[in-house]
Amino acid sequence: MTGFVSFVGSGPGDPELLTLKAVDRLQRADAVLFDDLSAGPILEHARAGADLIGVGKRAGRASPRQDHVSRLLVDYAKIDQRVVRLKSGDSGMFGRLEEELTALREAGIPYEIIPGIPSAVAAAAAIGIPLTRRNTARRVQFATGHDVTGKLPGDVNLVALADPMASTAIFMGKRTFPELLEKLLAHGLPADTPAILAEDVSRPEQKITRATVSVLAEKLAQEVGSSAGLILYGPLAEEGDGFEPNQ
Amino acid sequence: MTGFVSFVGSGPGDPELLTLKAVDRLQRADAVLFDDLSAGPILEHARAGADLIGVGKRAGRASPRQDHVSRLLVDYAKIDQRVVRLKSGDSGMFGRLEEELTALREAGIPYEIIPGIPSAVAAAAAIGIPLTRRNTARRVQFATGHDVTGKLPGDVNLVALADPMASTAIFMGKRTFPELLEKLLAHGLPADTPAILAEDVSRPEQKITRATVSVLAEKLAQEVGSSAGLILYGPLAEEGDGFEPNQ
Ligand SMILES: C[S@@+](CC[C@H](N)C(=O)[O-])C[C@H]1O[C@@H](n2cnc3c(N)ncnc32)[C@H](O)[C@@H]1O
Ligand SMILES: C[S@@+](CC[C@H](N)C(=O)[O-])C[C@H]1O[C@@H](n2cnc3c(N)ncnc32)[C@H](O)[C@@H]1O
Repeated sequence: MTGFVSFVGSGPGDPELLTLKAVDRLQRADAVLFDDLSAGPILEHARAGADLIGVGKRAGRASPRQDHVSRLLVDYAKIDQRVVRLKSGDSGMFGRLEEELTALREAGIPYEIIPGIPSAVAAAAAIGIPLTRRNTARRVQFATGHDVTGKLPGDVNLVALADPMASTAIFMGKRTFPELLEKLLAHGLPADTPAILAEDVSRPEQKITRATVSVLAEKLAQEVGSSAGLILYGPLAEEGDGFEPNQ
Repeated sequence: MTGFVSFVGSGPGDPELLTLKAVDRLQRADAVLFDDLSAGPILEHARAGADLIGVGKRAGRASPRQDHVSRLLVDYAKIDQRVVRLKSGDSGMFGRLEEELTALREAGIPYEIIPGIPSAVAAAAAIGIPLTRRNTARRVQFATGHDVTGKLPGDVNLVALADPMASTAIFMGKRTFPELLEKLLAHGLPADTPAILAEDVSRPEQKITRATVSVLAEKLAQEVGSSAGLILYGPLAEEGDGFEPNQ
């Protein structure tokens, strides 16, 4: 058996934010299994004739179950020389990488992991703000707004997430943010903590919305759509501190 | 004035982990100001004839003061068309980006930020482990082990960092880890929490050491060198959980 899987982080969406190594693996792949968020122009790096298989799991749509994705991955690796498993941002960050690695290990298929730019890192750069601040934010944290059932995880560390001296990014949290914020306020996060909603970062439709955590929660409580979005809050999101959106 | 500065994250050191955008900016730069950790083969992407200026601030060596670096940056932007400020990993992560942006803004020089792969993200990929785990680590945090004076910051959120249900990476923390760990243990972090010291990630001299937090602290207390290293701890560092170093 000669199958080999490269887990490739595609970055936030702009194909120019792929690494050289990611491009190399895409160019040499016989099959590319991709999520919705890592589709589009990124796939143009794959060679003509490669199998391109969408295994999207975007919220709100019917989507292949995780065990189906893992099985597909194993099956393709068994017949193909080289498989790329393309995941948005960095594959190790909220991307269910764990389950897919386990499936490959059980099947005895070798793999490698090529890191990618996490969407929260790309968001800060696109907005023009440093993720850490020398005196006001010496800790950066990334958390998820939903567990496998789509609910706010029951075990979130509220002390950590309510810390006004950290830069926080919530992934997949647009729907549950009002509920999360209620708990964070009870744990001392000031209601006027600056916040940014960063949607479709690095894509043509990128949208940056500045607010406070409480204004943002109100806004999100009324929203129905489910575009890919990150919520950033903490000193990094402060308006008028000189770090404005990058024109 | 036509000067323009691109802050470019170089990733952890392997030139193949540069993004396409980073390579483009390097190829078009008239001057490249780089830190020690972003030097080496990465600079080969710069065009012949570009000015390459080292402004290294590696711990333990005499190094240019930050205001000197900012002044250099402004001066080069004033005479050159295109300046690249190359910083290791992602420029917005523990890289003093804040001060340099402020200097450019005061001087009225336009800039952009090109994100890079943070070293902690590259470390997890190189080791072959997912940064997040569906059930055991739904929060990832990056913190620094030293403030501008080189000491452990006085205001670290010990509850956040002592959380055994998070994946934690400490940057620039090899020297102060024994002191930090004492406080974390007092805040409930189990002494046998799995830990990984990841040094020179993605470089030929990469070194991965697995231990527990307490064994690692003992080891570091006896060490004198100061290579670039990250300390990872939490469920992600567990040995024998199937996610072993990538051959
Ligand atoms: C399944 S997670 C994967 C995260 C990814 N592995 C990463 O490192 O960014 C999907 C979530 O990532 C965030 N995300 C991914 N790409 C994004 C983008 N271009 N703009 C804003 N958020 C994005 C959103 O919160 C989205 O719901
Ligand atoms: C000034 S900070 C800059 C961090 C960088 N901006 C990033 O995103 O990784 C320097 C610290 O980053 C970490 N670091 C950077 N490159 C590394 C590498 N290749 N391997 C291990 N640690 C690294 C070390 O903790 C080092 O002391």
